[in-house]
Amino acid sequence: MLDRVEDSPLYPLANPRSIALFGASNRGDSMGTSHLLSLLHLGFEGPLYPIHPTEKQVLGIKAYRDPGELPEVPDLALLVLPTRVVPEVLEACGKSGIRHAIVVSGGFREVGGEGVLLERRLKEIAARYRIRFLGPNCIGVANPHHRLNTTFFQFDGRAGYVGLASQSGSFVTQMFKFLDNMELGFSTAFSVGNEADVDIVDAMEYLGACPRTKVIALYIEGITRGRYFLETARSIVPHKPIVAFYAGGSGAGKRASFSHTGAMAGSDRVYDGAFRQCGIIRASSVTELFDFCWVLATQPRPRGARVIIQTHSGGPGAAAADACDRSGLQIPNLSSETKERLAPFVPPTGSLSNPVDMTYHKDPTHYFEELPRILLEDEGADMLLVYFLLPTQLVEQTLGRMGVPRDRIREETNKFIDEHAKAICALPGAHRKPLVGYTFRDLKERFILRLRSGGIPVFPEPARAARAMRALVEYARACGH
Amino acid sequence: MLDRVEDSPLYPLANPRSIALFGASNRGDSMGTSHLLSLLHLGFEGPLYPIHPTEKQVLGIKAYRDPGELPEVPDLALLVLPTRVVPEVLEACGKSGIRHAIVVSGGFREVGGEGVLLERRLKEIAARYRIRFLGPNCIGVANPHHRLNTTFFQFDGRAGYVGLASQSGSFVTQMFKFLDNMELGFSTAFSVGNEADVDIVDAMEYLGACPRTKVIALYIEGITRGRYFLETARSIVPHKPIVAFYAGGSGAGKRASFSHTGAMAGSDRVYDGAFRQCGIIRASSVTELFDFCWVLATQPRPRGARVIIQTHSGGPGAAAADACDRSGLQIPNLSSETKERLAPFVPPTGSLSNPVDMTYHKDPTHYFEELPRILLEDEGADMLLVYFLLPTQLVEQTLGRMGVPRDRIREETNKFIDEHAKAICALPGAHRKPLVGYTFRDLKERFILRLRSGGIPVFPEPARAARAMRALVEYARACGH
Repeated sequence: MLDRVEDSPLYPLANPRSIALFGASNRGDSMGTSHLLSLLHLGFEGPLYPIHPTEKQVLGIKAYRDPGELPEVPDLALLVLPTRVVPEVLEACGKSGIRHAIVVSGGFREVGGEGVLLERRLKEIAARYRIRFLGPNCIGVANPHHRLNTTFFQFDGRAGYVGLASQSGSFVTQMFKFLDNMELGFSTAFSVGNEADVDIVDAMEYLGACPRTKVIALYIEGITRGRYFLETARSIVPHKPIVAFYAGGSGAGKRASFSHTGAMAGSDRVYDGAFRQCGIIRASSVTELFDFCWVLATQPRPRGARVIIQTHSGGPGAAAADACDRSGLQIPNLSSETKERLAPFVPPTGSLSNPVDMTYHKDPTHYFEELPRILLEDEGADMLLVYFLLPTQLVEQTLGRMGVPRDRIREETNKFIDEHAKAICALPGAHRKPLVGYTFRDLKERFILRLRSGGIPVFPEPARAARAMRALVEYARACGH
Repeated sequence: MLDRVEDSPLYPLANPRSIALFGASNRGDSMGTSHLLSLLHLGFEGPLYPIHPTEKQVLGIKAYRDPGELPEVPDLALLVLPTRVVPEVLEACGKSGIRHAIVVSGGFREVGGEGVLLERRLKEIAARYRIRFLGPNCIGVANPHHRLNTTFFQFDGRAGYVGLASQSGSFVTQMFKFLDNMELGFSTAFSVGNEADVDIVDAMEYLGACPRTKVIALYIEGITRGRYFLETARSIVPHKPIVAFYAGGSGAGKRASFSHTGAMAGSDRVYDGAFRQCGIIRASSVTELFDFCWVLATQPRPRGARVIIQTHSGGPGAAAADACDRSGLQIPNLSSETKERLAPFVPPTGSLSNPVDMTYHKDPTHYFEELPRILLEDEGADMLLVYFLLPTQLVEQTLGRMGVPRDRIREETNKFIDEHAKAICALPGAHRKPLVGYTFRDLKERFILRLRSGGIPVFPEPARAARAMRALVEYARACGH
């Protein structure tokens, strides 16, 4: 494990002070132009130097004919060029002193034949000039904390704590919006492409040392430096969870991965074993990859797999119990002390077993305050799974009936919702036990949004919540808890 | 199977011309009042008769002291009353000639002890007056086609084609918004509660005959009339798919179900076998329940399990191939004829194997027209799974660069998107093969929305799409295809 993120060869790639860009032009339909637009859109703060053989300006920015003409040696070169010219341009970069590059262009190893030879040439040139580079056949880096987006996909830049190292560029660009909808964001995301030089292990190592990264997500189609991958992961896991989605395990996934990046995928079992050995949590889908990251980054490590389910409705409670059971979690009985303490808040039509069902209640405050507190204090509970339902409309109606004046209702409703969400958000830290929620309502409702942005993962169904809690248990076990 | 839905004992429960309501008052915090508000909110068109011992009017509607005083015998009585008075009120209903009731009140068999006796009394009274009733401990019926919502949860009423029979009321009310977000809606949804009289089998039978119902969803905690359930399901399945989510199978689910409705749940294996025998497709979560309904109601039956994946990006293609493989679907090679036909549209950096990867393309029209048509015409393909990505913003930028005047861009963008979506939506019908999509973008984006509302299920990740396509294969097999 690296001591300082600045020691990583990827540091100037993810935090460049200045960038030379090859391939942008004043023609709107070139890919290089899209990359430049993305850099401008996120507001990269350092100098940008378009390199163009004929144009004096590109999108209004002074352009240069050759990297040798630049007023300084930029930290990073971004190459979005036709395959055949990439080697000579990389060489020109090397000659002018540039030591870091992102090669976006495709048409190398992944297409076979001459592409293999061209990729070998790239590596020779890079070695000669000691250039470290990402790609080819990648889309580069997004580091919203540095206002850096080298991809062709514009991004409005919620900066977050999920670090991503991906063997697919789409799992960087397509996750911008996907994570935003989960109230999550990237710390830094790397697309490593063909890994001719920098590979996914280097990216993972960087993220392990990056102080803004709370959890590492890996999208893997095939690992080449197996031993170093295992060693590096093993050194990171005790400090920071790693979740991996490996698409190359199945027969079809293997073929697809091969034609995508030319990576040789190994059998599912081999990867399963490797992940388990070094404490990486395996996700079986893209959704799970980020679900797991979410709970791992926000919730404390549980001491065991015993879950108490809190609901005010039987069906959602039964569905959650079923989901926990299928995910290998336990649903313990409540202690008699807990039952006694709960009794004043649970009517006879409810249930004091687990799931705890408060049923229809006139005063929802008990559901958000006394109940979760009492349940988290039960010695037999390692985690709490809560069914959340507090529609704005219902609170408004209730306050209206309670006599709150019409012009104050919206404000009082928001206050009511925000206070309850805040109380819930404080619980996992105070009790040092994970609290996860689920709802079938719209995730953009104020209450759910407040919980989510306050660090409580709320899933749109119990099955996803249960699998995510299972990931918490696996991580705690990997850390020896 | 019923020949006509009007022959079902549930017909007057789901299509009442008039309703007597017990338990609504001018006190805003009573549950009965919430039920009345829901009926009013959805705009029930027949007469509503609140029955109240003292009030002359309830929420401005003329109230009556006793069902005997009503100007007509209403089709339906809705009882939202304290447990102890329910039997005598049901008796009063019977005496006044009412033959259908919904008993919302809880506190019967599900709480044990005296509740069991009270429920028995209800059944005796119902038998004496030949009253058919839903409940107790249920929330009744939502039939948006009839503007009927007897639940306490307000609903804006997208009428749809998913019929639901549920042993949990929450899986009716909480699915209003859930389905709306999927561009789906209920034909009719029944909450059957304790099933003292009408049970889930009656509800399923009704939905089997209901012409507005294209697919039936069941939320099951435990079946009592096992043989009749199997026979009824078997008679419906060849005409209409049935999907079931059974939460009572796991140990924890079983205990939770018992304390919820008092239903005795059987082992998972028993239910698995029963479902398979009669061709019911089993879902393992609430999300899957409606995912499966969606594809089954919109897509033709596939001839086999062979899926072609169409993508323009390697990672999403590999993830989809992996997901299909894990769901037991096949990813066949393309015929050489298909490869030849595709070649003009796929650049050398793309892939002509399966997944077909068109990679970065300047002209997206090929992706939405030629490619899917050619792939659906491949004799070796039973289904097509397409990665969809056409952000409005990108189309606007492209049209802008192509010189479309600024004031026409929005209109032209919408036209472009709508035309492409329309072309895609016509494909499954024309080729008699299922077409399912996935995206990582926002499901509310115009293109995705147009596809979804045009009958193409688009899922927010490939794993859900693959499992749903697997359900299509299972259903086709159950029908002997």
